[in-house]
Amino acid sequence: MSETRWLSDDEQRMWRRYRDMNQLLELAMDRQLQRDASMSQSDYSVLVSLSEAESGGLRARDLGAALGWDRSRVSHQVRRMEGRGLVAKNECPDDGRGTIVSLTEAGAQAIASVAPKHVEKVRELFIDVLSEDEVRILTDIYERVVARIDEVDGITLPG
Amino acid sequence: MSETRWLSDDEQRMWRRYRDMNQLLELAMDRQLQRDASMSQSDYSVLVSLSEAESGGLRARDLGAALGWDRSRVSHQVRRMEGRGLVAKNECPDDGRGTIVSLTEAGAQAIASVAPKHVEKVRELFIDVLSEDEVRILTDIYERVVARIDEVDGITLPG
Repeated sequence: MSETRWLSDDEQRMWRRYRDMNQLLELAMDRQLQRDASMSQSDYSVLVSLSEAESGGLRARDLGAALGWDRSRVSHQVRRMEGRGLVAKNECPDDGRGTIVSLTEAGAQAIASVAPKHVEKVRELFIDVLSEDEVRILTDIYERVVARIDEVDGITLPG
Repeated sequence: MSETRWLSDDEQRMWRRYRDMNQLLELAMDRQLQRDASMSQSDYSVLVSLSEAESGGLRARDLGAALGWDRSRVSHQVRRMEGRGLVAKNECPDDGRGTIVSLTEAGAQAIASVAPKHVEKVRELFIDVLSEDEVRILTDIYERVVARIDEVDGITLPG
């Protein structure tokens, strides 16, 4: 193996700050959801995905693909949310295979109530700290990294 | 509550790309560690923290603080790594309270062997995509967001 190209001090610092920011932002967003809606980020992600689906429902496998989760994580999460009345499961009408996960009325109300506060928190902690130029620069960088990961490792997100 | 300041299209796009990139980078780094060392990112983080500690060991509580993990996660993770011979637990010599977690010889070898490949992967997927200017811009943005989260929500990382 060729000699390791270790990170320079500046690169190391950027990488650490990136990870610090991720960790702190996760924690802050978790707390907001817990405080305002007794909800986890996993709950929130499922509700957002379902509320953006055209019919308010998705096949379990498509929900998993959208969230990057494996089947057992989807099944576990959906079972818990079903128990709390936020989602419902039905057999897929098209072909009898698989399960459709849908928003219930309570799930729709929950996401409608918490989403504005969640967005406010994203804005307060992250977006408001950025200039318009920086928003563009970040988008551009993130798109390049996403493309790079696809190119090098063949890993992509659906949609 | 005042009217929600929803995100603009540009802001929304940046926020989604940021989350996409995080998810893909996590996945890619996971795969690298699994492939090259049959190791999880949690294993890797523990080994890095211990190898950076002056004596090659840390109190369990300090390890948890460094990683942002609660006591039960630290204890679970350390137990599994002890079972694989990567770390050892000893009573704290100073005051008889708490447990010191230390690198074993095998743990030190494991981290020495995988770290260069892990760093190469960070470089390949993220750092190499950036100009020097962009590294500086990102560091600056991340530091502002970290400061903001402390200011608004009082959430900080140790160290």
